[in-house]
Amino acid sequence: MLKVKALAIDTLRENVLVLSRECTALRPQRLTGSRKVEVRAGGLVLFANIVIADDDDLVGPDEAGLTMPLFRRLGVAPGSDVDIAPARPPASLDAVRGKIHGATLSQGQLNAIVGDVVSHAYSDMEVAAFLIACASFMTPEETLAMTQSMIASGSRLSWNRALVVDKHCIGGIPGNRTSLIVAPIVAAHGLLFPKTSSRAITSPAGTADTMEVLARVDLNEDEMRSVVDRCGGCIVWGGKVDLSPADDVLISVERPLGVDTPEQMVASILSKKAAAGSTHLLIDLPVGPSAKVRDTAQALRLRKLFEFVGGRLGLTLEIAITDGGQPIGRGVGPVLEARDVRAVLENSADAPDDLKEKSILLAARILEFDPGLAGGRGAARARELLESGAAAKKMDQIIEAQGPAPCAPELGSLTYEVAARTSGWIEGVDCARIGRVARLAGASTDIGAGIRYGSASRSIGFMASTQPTSASRARRPTRIRDFG
Amino acid sequence: MLKVKALAIDTLRENVLVLSRECTALRPQRLTGSRKVEVRAGGLVLFANIVIADDDDLVGPDEAGLTMPLFRRLGVAPGSDVDIAPARPPASLDAVRGKIHGATLSQGQLNAIVGDVVSHAYSDMEVAAFLIACASFMTPEETLAMTQSMIASGSRLSWNRALVVDKHCIGGIPGNRTSLIVAPIVAAHGLLFPKTSSRAITSPAGTADTMEVLARVDLNEDEMRSVVDRCGGCIVWGGKVDLSPADDVLISVERPLGVDTPEQMVASILSKKAAAGSTHLLIDLPVGPSAKVRDTAQALRLRKLFEFVGGRLGLTLEIAITDGGQPIGRGVGPVLEARDVRAVLENSADAPDDLKEKSILLAARILEFDPGLAGGRGAARARELLESGAAAKKMDQIIEAQGPAPCAPELGSLTYEVAARTSGWIEGVDCARIGRVARLAGASTDIGAGIRYGSASRSIGFMASTQPTSASRARRPTRIRDFG
Repeated sequence: MLKVKALAIDTLRENVLVLSRECTALRPQRLTGSRKVEVRAGGLVLFANIVIADDDDLVGPDEAGLTMPLFRRLGVAPGSDVDIAPARPPASLDAVRGKIHGATLSQGQLNAIVGDVVSHAYSDMEVAAFLIACASFMTPEETLAMTQSMIASGSRLSWNRALVVDKHCIGGIPGNRTSLIVAPIVAAHGLLFPKTSSRAITSPAGTADTMEVLARVDLNEDEMRSVVDRCGGCIVWGGKVDLSPADDVLISVERPLGVDTPEQMVASILSKKAAAGSTHLLIDLPVGPSAKVRDTAQALRLRKLFEFVGGRLGLTLEIAITDGGQPIGRGVGPVLEARDVRAVLENSADAPDDLKEKSILLAARILEFDPGLAGGRGAARARELLESGAAAKKMDQIIEAQGPAPCAPELGSLTYEVAARTSGWIEGVDCARIGRVARLAGASTDIGAGIRYGSASRSIGFMASTQPTSASRARRPTRIRDFG
Repeated sequence: MLKVKALAIDTLRENVLVLSRECTALRPQRLTGSRKVEVRAGGLVLFANIVIADDDDLVGPDEAGLTMPLFRRLGVAPGSDVDIAPARPPASLDAVRGKIHGATLSQGQLNAIVGDVVSHAYSDMEVAAFLIACASFMTPEETLAMTQSMIASGSRLSWNRALVVDKHCIGGIPGNRTSLIVAPIVAAHGLLFPKTSSRAITSPAGTADTMEVLARVDLNEDEMRSVVDRCGGCIVWGGKVDLSPADDVLISVERPLGVDTPEQMVASILSKKAAAGSTHLLIDLPVGPSAKVRDTAQALRLRKLFEFVGGRLGLTLEIAITDGGQPIGRGVGPVLEARDVRAVLENSADAPDDLKEKSILLAARILEFDPGLAGGRGAARARELLESGAAAKKMDQIIEAQGPAPCAPELGSLTYEVAARTSGWIEGVDCARIGRVARLAGASTDIGAGIRYGSASRSIGFMASTQPTSASRARRPTRIRDFG
């Protein structure tokens, strides 16, 4: 038994426990092979990695130094008792080793692995081992079983409606903030659209980050239900609703590794959406040379896998293969993207056309899930709801219901202007680099940071050949601005 | 520029940098995707993971808190200047991603990966991703290239002799401390045997741990050379000689994952031995139901791979496939094993026969590398050198040259006796569990901890069938002791 000491050290996602080298509970230097211990207090067992302190002022021999994430997750008072023991390797690692050696995993094995991942029994390297073993091959049946394990790992929302719609983009296209326009259009039509979204991890803004410029997004399940009851839709951050928590752990390892296989993408997206209680789902799958999906053949394979797993889960899926050749809208970064969204919803003269037209296209396909709408009427209905101001009114209602934004939507004050050196046509835009520049400028942590394209052109143009094929695909930018 | 502050926190193998949340050099919370930074001081660049401090007494905004391994590796004075910048992901990760997707890696790609691994540019999860991608398949040519990259990653010793012998056991058999008997036999014969060995990682004792009961083992390269010049052999810890440092990093991730593929085993062992300057190498490959290699077919495949890679490296290899069905000797743990070694070298009446006979068998095969020794004479020569006391005399000379052991070889004073409940034959011994029990008792960190088999029998017997097949394979133990 050791006494809890809270340490003002933030180890981010990782549970870290600081023990004295002279610790009375166990000799920390004995744990040479693995640094993992079990921390028990108040009926809760958490896994943590230890580091050793040689300074009694930091952590004494009878103290357990809990870094911030561990202290928060354990929820105990400083000075209270905590039990520490070497952690046994999780039994499910045997199945991971089997997978490494070429086995196909059963539903039971995947349940065990996902359960241990969620309880932080796996170290980052063990999660990586599992993901990479799955990356070498995973059958469609395994992908389905994995998705089901992930759904079962957290809460599952139920809306008691036959038609609950949602949309999701696989990501990678800066400024592609269509959800904030599609959701109010669809909700204004009367379909239930309870949207949970994510914050940026490696992109310059997530849907939740951009929505947070306009409204509060960290709603819990009860608050979310109350907004959906009142408005028929919402756009909240999924982090407080505990949907497919396994996905959050897996993504936190996949992202830094830069590994994003079709199987993991399908399991990740469909587990979140099924857990959120969707029945009908539109997936936006942008294809382009610097997008996540590089060519149509790859897009079609991915689509088949989405359809297989989604179908077995009982979801009705639409897959929209869209143009991912260039960024969308005029700004990249939460505040700049929120401005683009506002301009489209308010039908401003300077609203970015590409964002507007793509949003109408996607909203149309969701609206056509409505059996009451005549086939082929989706696009006209979406345009009508947007241009009449009905969507803007619905958005205002949702914003009011979710509550005020936590901070003022101010743009960064430090700017740097990059002008093209000569006139000409832009032949290509690297979406990944645009995203990286915006991140280096501070997005999404600094909501006012990002990139804004020059106002004399409507967007950075992109075309596949050296000659413009149509006026809409080749525009000349005058300036690119960078708010740092 | 930040000021170095040394923190009395031992993060074991990992470089960890503690920065204030208000750090003047960079906003640590911006590094959400990766926690990795470059730390520059005095011409050296090291990679480290950051954690965030919210306590100015621990680390102030203008300070860089260096935990012990980082402080030691950087070699700077407290208060001196250090430069911190976000680390870019190592370029070689692209090749790792290629491997994940099924590519075969070139020598150049493997050189880049191994170089980045050695400079700690890879996180544990990135190392795991590389290892698991390689575990799914690796061609013999890739294994060779990997071995060559690993050799090039550190120092390479050269002895200016046509015949430099060495031996290595792939491990897994408790008490299998033959090197400490084989080395003095072979050196007494006159062959050069500059043995570098490892400390225990997941076993209850490594050769270096057991030798350290008898002599100093942490010799640097110059000291090692001087011992070899005087004695014709040595038994030192390899940790100060910088041989295949990539191997140390890879092993530190392989071991907790419990992943040990033939390819990684071959690259690990042969890179260490080639870097140590061996020309002729004997590999002890124990086969048994609880050993690393479970059956003869597996042993033969492993042997082929050793022969392919070793041959291309210009090494002369002998592979001894030995009985790995039971522990060897009478004790497990550094002090207990050192007693067994002493008893064999001194031809004591209570010397464990199995350890003696196996050592003679292995020494014989090494002696036959000597072109001056008539074929088939190895075993008799080895027995002669051992039983005449020549080997013991050589061992004393080596011990004297290496210097005195750092601490007294005392056995643990807390003992627990486990007696068999009935008389009978022991049908099987699980080597992995014996190792685990000895580790739980405290071996190898507590050198006096471990397991001793009862003195009324010569060892724990093992046999494959329920009836004894020979007197030597079925002995009745009276007691198993456990020193904690």
